[in-house]
Amino acid sequence: MDLNADLGEGFGIWRLGDDHALLDLVTSANVACGFHGGDASTMRRVCAATAERRVAVGAQVGYRDLAGFGRRHIAYDFAELRDEVTYQLGALEAFCRLFHTRVRYLKPHGALYHAAACDEAQAAALVAAVSGYDHELPVLCAPGSVLAQLAVGAGLRVVAEGFADRNYLPNGSLVPRTAANALVTDPEEVADRAVRMATERTVVAVDGRVVPCHVESICLHGDTPGAVASAALVRAALIDAGVTLSPFA
Amino acid sequence: MDLNADLGEGFGIWRLGDDHALLDLVTSANVACGFHGGDASTMRRVCAATAERRVAVGAQVGYRDLAGFGRRHIAYDFAELRDEVTYQLGALEAFCRLFHTRVRYLKPHGALYHAAACDEAQAAALVAAVSGYDHELPVLCAPGSVLAQLAVGAGLRVVAEGFADRNYLPNGSLVPRTAANALVTDPEEVADRAVRMATERTVVAVDGRVVPCHVESICLHGDTPGAVASAALVRAALIDAGVTLSPFA
Amino acid sequence: MDLNADLGEGFGIWRLGDDHALLDLVTSANVACGFHGGDASTMRRVCAATAERRVAVGAQVGYRDLAGFGRRHIAYDFAELRDEVTYQLGALEAFCRLFHTRVRYLKPHGALYHAAACDEAQAAALVAAVSGYDHELPVLCAPGSVLAQLAVGAGLRVVAEGFADRNYLPNGSLVPRTAANALVTDPEEVADRAVRMATERTVVAVDGRVVPCHVESICLHGDTPGAVASAALVRAALIDAGVTLSPFA
Amino acid sequence: MDLNADLGEGFGIWRLGDDHALLDLVTSANVACGFHGGDASTMRRVCAATAERRVAVGAQVGYRDLAGFGRRHIAYDFAELRDEVTYQLGALEAFCRLFHTRVRYLKPHGALYHAAACDEAQAAALVAAVSGYDHELPVLCAPGSVLAQLAVGAGLRVVAEGFADRNYLPNGSLVPRTAANALVTDPEEVADRAVRMATERTVVAVDGRVVPCHVESICLHGDTPGAVASAALVRAALIDAGVTLSPFA
Repeated sequence: MDLNADLGEGFGIWRLGDDHALLDLVTSANVACGFHGGDASTMRRVCAATAERRVAVGAQVGYRDLAGFGRRHIAYDFAELRDEVTYQLGALEAFCRLFHTRVRYLKPHGALYHAAACDEAQAAALVAAVSGYDHELPVLCAPGSVLAQLAVGAGLRVVAEGFADRNYLPNGSLVPRTAANALVTDPEEVADRAVRMATERTVVAVDGRVVPCHVESICLHGDTPGAVASAALVRAALIDAGVTLSPFA
Repeated sequence: MDLNADLGEGFGIWRLGDDHALLDLVTSANVACGFHGGDASTMRRVCAATAERRVAVGAQVGYRDLAGFGRRHIAYDFAELRDEVTYQLGALEAFCRLFHTRVRYLKPHGALYHAAACDEAQAAALVAAVSGYDHELPVLCAPGSVLAQLAVGAGLRVVAEGFADRNYLPNGSLVPRTAANALVTDPEEVADRAVRMATERTVVAVDGRVVPCHVESICLHGDTPGAVASAALVRAALIDAGVTLSPFA
Repeated sequence: MDLNADLGEGFGIWRLGDDHALLDLVTSANVACGFHGGDASTMRRVCAATAERRVAVGAQVGYRDLAGFGRRHIAYDFAELRDEVTYQLGALEAFCRLFHTRVRYLKPHGALYHAAACDEAQAAALVAAVSGYDHELPVLCAPGSVLAQLAVGAGLRVVAEGFADRNYLPNGSLVPRTAANALVTDPEEVADRAVRMATERTVVAVDGRVVPCHVESICLHGDTPGAVASAALVRAALIDAGVTLSPFA
Repeated sequence: MDLNADLGEGFGIWRLGDDHALLDLVTSANVACGFHGGDASTMRRVCAATAERRVAVGAQVGYRDLAGFGRRHIAYDFAELRDEVTYQLGALEAFCRLFHTRVRYLKPHGALYHAAACDEAQAAALVAAVSGYDHELPVLCAPGSVLAQLAVGAGLRVVAEGFADRNYLPNGSLVPRTAANALVTDPEEVADRAVRMATERTVVAVDGRVVPCHVESICLHGDTPGAVASAALVRAALIDAGVTLSPFA
């Protein structure tokens, strides 16, 4: 099983999340590429740290919206989005190159993640960017999303991710964030769910049913101290359960 | 002889210069990388056009200063500048990759060009960026500049450029822009000077002396209609004089 | 009748439209406030020029999106949009103050104009910004829009604008831009329609019917040479028809 | 005596310093205006909080450089800087207006503070911005700086500030930050120095001599937890010493 988390999301003087702690927990680092967060020196620092730890680097591409941290939907047209994603891929690649590694996958950030899950044009722009840049580059995204479908259709490798700290509907999709029971907050329960995802490929849905959950990566969050502790518990529980942790890419 | 010019310096809805006309005149295109000007879709468009014409693509790297178009000196520290230049190199490379080509050289833009000519820290940041990214990548800059010296010292290839539309001092350096006679404005004279640079490797200095001018590239300007016509005249005069025009890289 | 047009939409080195020509045609200048276009020195310049000509200054507020020129819908939340509009109002006011005048009205730009015409939250954010800033400030917008309704409901003065170069549906709304017959392109016809709007308060709809068109301002465009000539024709035709041109504010 | 500190220096999702704690310690808040830090919603929030506490709002104007947090010198020309400062003043004024108050003073931030202390053109740009905007607006700056001199020459009120946590040279100027003994780190000593500044109008220089220090405001720092505690100690010590704390403006 792979563990991914967002890293390098500070900008200039501003920090966000605990990159240092997360680097020792993940096997794949979604590195912000400067459009929604992240800057050149942070990208270099994170790439250096991942190289030391054999953590895979993924391009966490986002909308050009520092003020909104890429969390506001923007009605990009296809070509603009494709090109800005290409730009971000190349920028991150430059830092990987310094440490004799490469960008190993792409994961969309924030509002782009959500848009690509349901909007054909935006999903197609991501697929076009990846296809043009490197046809071997996997796309990390939600299983069943429009992005996943279009990427598979274009011959790209799709890697599905799961969320141990989110509740699932019986149909295998996430309980929307707006719902009161969207989140699983008890760290022990989060860890148990991660182990179940990794060992049984299932999740317990909100109605108590055990439903299939075929994911190759589990997404960890690190933007609060509690989140880092919870992420550490997930990692420890997986190792205790005999799960091998390694990058999918 | 190589002919270089700045291209792709628009941003979003705003255009600057006549990319279309210049693309048919140059052998090397200094492509703006989004920090002082340029955006992802423009970069893609220019890279596509250069690929069709066998024009070499260079990374025209600049300060992060859209509002000032990279023409205001910024007191970057070494690491920040090195990293932002690395970022720009990678971003442009992504678009070259789409058209099965590569970034062939680096040329600093505006205030960074001037800073790198005399400021050790900023010149060293450019050299560090290029050395880390691709030790084979030539640096296009002013002969005798601090950047040229440091780049040579670091084992990089330095390509000197000349300005047919600028007056030179007897010591071979440019008459400062602030001087009344900085510019050569007569298009015929500009063309004659370009031919002399290409065929005799000399320039007539402001005091009438003929002084050596060993340059591998001549910089054309295209930001006014007159400039494009003058650039076209330079190109025609060089061809008439039997000079072979081809990228240095 | 008032004539309004967008002005000061350049940014840094980049220019857009012919501010100089438009300043002599309009009675109200929609001045870009730096978020989608415009910069501080341009704002000052335009405010100085309007003060000389007794042209009213309006705040042309937009999304924070230089790269997209404010033409892409952004899913702002209410408070962010209200606050960014407040910010833009204040910034422009500072330049008016230099020339002993004031911001006389607000007009949303681009995608914000369109969003405010149908999206309650974004329209409400504009209304909240204006109400908080200056309850006497009129809002220039499309008649019948959600913005117009909410602004009236909040006790603000709403000024309806018409488009002499756009076709209208029989119900008095604009033919959508996506339709083939959205635009009226013949300058003489545009001028005739402006005169009809000003003198008879009607417009000839696409089906030939004459329908009411109660507008206090006609929007001119100036982003192409042809547009400026057409705008000049509109102005001349109105004066010939005995229409008094003056700011609504 | 007045106590000033920088507030509202976050941007978007990113926070910086402890605005909440500082608001209860200062009598004057230097509010970031969005160019080096700060955003519209943060400005509104801080202005609301100052209005509740009768804390004076000052415009903490900076270079347009979010990536460098306004800490890198930028070679602005006079008019650009004057206009960007005017823009920032107006933007902040809009938020003050919402809470029935006003911008009470201007203080330059970071590299602009340092440039204005010695660079005539940049200092003159600040003076021109304030003079044009509101001739009654005081300028908070270092005593003896070029800015202080030009502002006085232009008939502006200059308010000198002191730093209880910085060492002074016998000539009354600060020990440069690059020197090992630039900072006073013991909180008790910092508080003692503040009391001496407020009650005796003197400071103990690095050579032990007691030298005059005529300041109307003491600058507190709040960007670390320790700094906030130290600032609280300064405030308490001043009150214990019978010093009345109130805004200078």
